[in-house]
Amino acid sequence: MIKPRTPPGVLELLPREQVAFQRMLDTIRRTFEAYGFLPVETPVFELSDVLLTKTGGETERQVYFAQSTGALEKGDPGRPEMALRFDLTVPLARYVAEHEHDLAFPFRRYQMQRVYRGERAQRGRFREFYQCDIDVIGKDTLSPRFEAEVPAVINAVFEALGIGEFTIQLNHRKLLRGFFAGQGISDEAQPLVLREIDKLDKRGEEAVRATLVGEAFGLAPEVADRLLEFSRVRSSGHDDALAKLDALGAGTPLFEEGRDELRALLGMLNAMGVPGSRYAINLSIARGLDYYTGMVYETTLDAHPEIGSICSGGRYDDLASHYTKSKLPGVGISIGLTRLFWQLREAGLVGTAESTVHALVVLLDDEGLDHALALSQRLRAAGLNVETQMEPRKLAKQLQYADRAGIRFVVIRGGDEAARGVVAVKDLRRGEQFEVAEDELGSTLRVELEQLRAHGA
Amino acid sequence: MIKPRTPPGVLELLPREQVAFQRMLDTIRRTFEAYGFLPVETPVFELSDVLLTKTGGETERQVYFAQSTGALEKGDPGRPEMALRFDLTVPLARYVAEHEHDLAFPFRRYQMQRVYRGERAQRGRFREFYQCDIDVIGKDTLSPRFEAEVPAVINAVFEALGIGEFTIQLNHRKLLRGFFAGQGISDEAQPLVLREIDKLDKRGEEAVRATLVGEAFGLAPEVADRLLEFSRVRSSGHDDALAKLDALGAGTPLFEEGRDELRALLGMLNAMGVPGSRYAINLSIARGLDYYTGMVYETTLDAHPEIGSICSGGRYDDLASHYTKSKLPGVGISIGLTRLFWQLREAGLVGTAESTVHALVVLLDDEGLDHALALSQRLRAAGLNVETQMEPRKLAKQLQYADRAGIRFVVIRGGDEAARGVVAVKDLRRGEQFEVAEDELGSTLRVELEQLRAHGA
Repeated sequence: MIKPRTPPGVLELLPREQVAFQRMLDTIRRTFEAYGFLPVETPVFELSDVLLTKTGGETERQVYFAQSTGALEKGDPGRPEMALRFDLTVPLARYVAEHEHDLAFPFRRYQMQRVYRGERAQRGRFREFYQCDIDVIGKDTLSPRFEAEVPAVINAVFEALGIGEFTIQLNHRKLLRGFFAGQGISDEAQPLVLREIDKLDKRGEEAVRATLVGEAFGLAPEVADRLLEFSRVRSSGHDDALAKLDALGAGTPLFEEGRDELRALLGMLNAMGVPGSRYAINLSIARGLDYYTGMVYETTLDAHPEIGSICSGGRYDDLASHYTKSKLPGVGISIGLTRLFWQLREAGLVGTAESTVHALVVLLDDEGLDHALALSQRLRAAGLNVETQMEPRKLAKQLQYADRAGIRFVVIRGGDEAARGVVAVKDLRRGEQFEVAEDELGSTLRVELEQLRAHGA
Repeated sequence: MIKPRTPPGVLELLPREQVAFQRMLDTIRRTFEAYGFLPVETPVFELSDVLLTKTGGETERQVYFAQSTGALEKGDPGRPEMALRFDLTVPLARYVAEHEHDLAFPFRRYQMQRVYRGERAQRGRFREFYQCDIDVIGKDTLSPRFEAEVPAVINAVFEALGIGEFTIQLNHRKLLRGFFAGQGISDEAQPLVLREIDKLDKRGEEAVRATLVGEAFGLAPEVADRLLEFSRVRSSGHDDALAKLDALGAGTPLFEEGRDELRALLGMLNAMGVPGSRYAINLSIARGLDYYTGMVYETTLDAHPEIGSICSGGRYDDLASHYTKSKLPGVGISIGLTRLFWQLREAGLVGTAESTVHALVVLLDDEGLDHALALSQRLRAAGLNVETQMEPRKLAKQLQYADRAGIRFVVIRGGDEAARGVVAVKDLRRGEQFEVAEDELGSTLRVELEQLRAHGA
């Protein structure tokens, strides 16, 4: 006998948790599709030489390799031929480069699949987790206006998920780099300085300031102060964001370009009706220093800042330089849904959902079987998800089963009901019982469920 | 520069093919849920000792193992700690045994995930493919009535998929074994004889008969004839199925048990309204000789018998004997969707779907941007999937893009339309253009799309 168990670092859910998770996936997908993104799925494994174009980084140390029994038996030395994807960005780059001539650009794709990282096993860290990504990829060029659409998608996703108020934090790399250049910080020093400033939350302002004016950087105290002041800028609402932008000291041409783009973006968010309370300029957001070149985004839950960013991304200039000579600029975001779900569950914000099964049709005696089967089919034709009790059991047992399984409606037809052409319905959610003509059962239960949906449950 | 390419043996789809594939996945899932099955997902990798409880079989030779860079560097000899699932049945067994005390029985689950097999690379053979499974698992016992529900689910799935008429082939292991025993064939010889009879399609009746009466089996010619006659039994329609059953020579108690169960099943299919044309008794169906103990199912497309079974399964007596002492009988089926999709595409039955994007809102000049953004949002609020053109381009270019992307509606608002409060809509599917008041655009397009859906497109 072998003890049944999952490998460490995976999140396996019980059915009713899986229903809750699946609803989040569906909501995200529906929203991505509403904004015109197309589905893409890629294989879980890629050829190792294709996946691992950069070597030696931390990511590669976490990569899982896959090999068949045959390859193992041969005992080939060296790196296995295939590796599991560790994110959805490298597969996207490979996909776009491989299918370049079959795609319409700007190419808008969403992808919601699991990725794999050999992380140290630790509470809340996962070796297998869902990422839900969107990207818009241009060929040769991509208008900065696509960077404005992204916060509108983020807003729509988290509004639809209904997990509490949130704020989309906005920054712009041109603004950052332009400002830094204006302070006399060289192109080479900028990423290092930024990396220090990115530690503000962890180390505190005093410590970061000390490092900046210390030997390693040797910034003048007033320059360090201006950087810190700059990184402290936060806006509150649409008008304040514009005002804060205007109030920033004039900088280099790059800085002005970033400011213009950010201003245009705020205007577009307004045109799209994104509430001003949902986004804020936050000039301390750094993210992916070598990668992003325009807007960068992070998203935080207002009531749960400890969770950190729940949706991040930005604008990049070249997606697939390892695979194609074509220039493929893009903008995208990623939601790490497994980790988010786990954190929301820890915080008590999501949990066990009602079953996907709407109704249990009970069976009181064998004579009722054919009728129960036919009634179940009629309910399914009316759009309900139905389980039929296949063997007669005591009603109390069947109610207990429905309750445990999270099934809302229990449909009962005893001799008395049959004689009157009605069925009795127990609504386990409301703790109510009612009778309805058999012919009207499907439409009645549909109405109840639609009301539920209208109330966002 | 690295050539972007996928590993051999995977099916990667272009976006509009992915839309078609996703629609099939959604349809299958919706039907599984309608019949009261609950979602389960398991990790792509399982611990090797848990996954590979039986060793030496063909399956194990095809297993992919996964190991992290760290494990590779250590150069541990022996089998890697983790392996990719090669079907959804072993993970189900592990899942049910592991979570036994948290599940309500009968446990009805569906699972739609990819599985991995190191098959020889060959056209139409895949190393990564989707399986879509349902199973009902009982604790200690499971009524044979659940075996009657399965063909109703198969019928609903393939009716909803709309890929042509199909027939669910039914057989019963008790009928088979009972009949064989009645012919004096020992329990030990039965699987071997069955394996021969299973080759009827490939080898032809003469060759199989020769083997059965030959040295290896040594059956009397009249016994061989009776077996072949038995295996030729096919029914056509509900009444014929009952008649064919009745006409079978009386057999052993086991045979009669099988006949009674099959008769009851036919009655339940009738009660559920499954058309008699959709199922047939086929006493040559063998399948999983060591595994199945009751009903077995195969499903074939009437117009494409060369595709073989597109949905198969059966009743088994013990799901998880490697993991638990509890007896867990079950019944289930599996659809290998990747292979089916590939075959349907080869046969020209599925292909490129219209985009998930319903409408492209065009942009004729920069002044129109805010309005285009706002209009797009209003259409999304009306339930449409919308892409907004972000930079003005010539109308012809935008129409060409929509056409190439498979977007049905193109929404145009020039100065003339704006002055009159209307928009022009090009319906690329119908090749028509019409005008509609801006306020009514969302509801008008919704109606068009609903009509489409009502016509099953």
